[in-house]
Amino acid sequence: MECINLAEKFDLFGEYWTPKIVAESNGQLVKIAKGLGEIVWHAHEQEDELFLVLKGTLIIRFRDRDVSLGPGEMLVVPKGVEHAPYAQEETHILLIEPRSTAHTGDVSSDQTVALEDQEWI
Amino acid sequence: MECINLAEKFDLFGEYWTPKIVAESNGQLVKIAKGLGEIVWHAHEQEDELFLVLKGTLIIRFRDRDVSLGPGEMLVVPKGVEHAPYAQEETHILLIEPRSTAHTGDVSSDQTVALEDQEWI
Repeated sequence: MECINLAEKFDLFGEYWTPKIVAESNGQLVKIAKGLGEIVWHAHEQEDELFLVLKGTLIIRFRDRDVSLGPGEMLVVPKGVEHAPYAQEETHILLIEPRSTAHTGDVSSDQTVALEDQEWI
Repeated sequence: MECINLAEKFDLFGEYWTPKIVAESNGQLVKIAKGLGEIVWHAHEQEDELFLVLKGTLIIRFRDRDVSLGPGEMLVVPKGVEHAPYAQEETHILLIEPRSTAHTGDVSSDQTVALEDQEWI
């Protein structure tokens, strides 16, 4: 039951597209990530994924359109829907997803961070 | 899969301590609420409750101490832990909790908003 200051947590790391866990609630993990550039197309077959942008602009590409999220904007990607996040500038993102959610879903790539390697900060 | 602009959602209502639902993800509801003054002491026996402050200052009183949350700060109240949120100024809060979570938990008061009356905006 500690106050979690998200800006302070973002200062603790520099890598892009490597989610760090900051909290757990009802079996779901609250993660933060910095985004720059693109991440591989993927879907999560069993889990919805919540994105909330805190800084910058996150483009979430879907197969039929792109959605742009700025600070204070959020979106839930329903399970099974292919998506490819993209950021032109450094973007700070809060993610909420179940403990079981694989980083790049059904796809394994050089960008993939294994579940057991996702660290708490 | 729409962009949800939280500031625009906050402009849609004026009442205090009446959570409005803005999204659902993995069976949990994302709610926003304006806080001013205090809300009754209560606990949620089965559900953790995530608070993220977007504007103002939220004091979460626990039986042994108070925790103060400013913009960009969050806290998870574990299930079963008594708490009483309090705000001295108008405070904007994002809450995430399971669909089953009662507004004031184990306590029914004049402030309680029944589950079926919590509206989507």
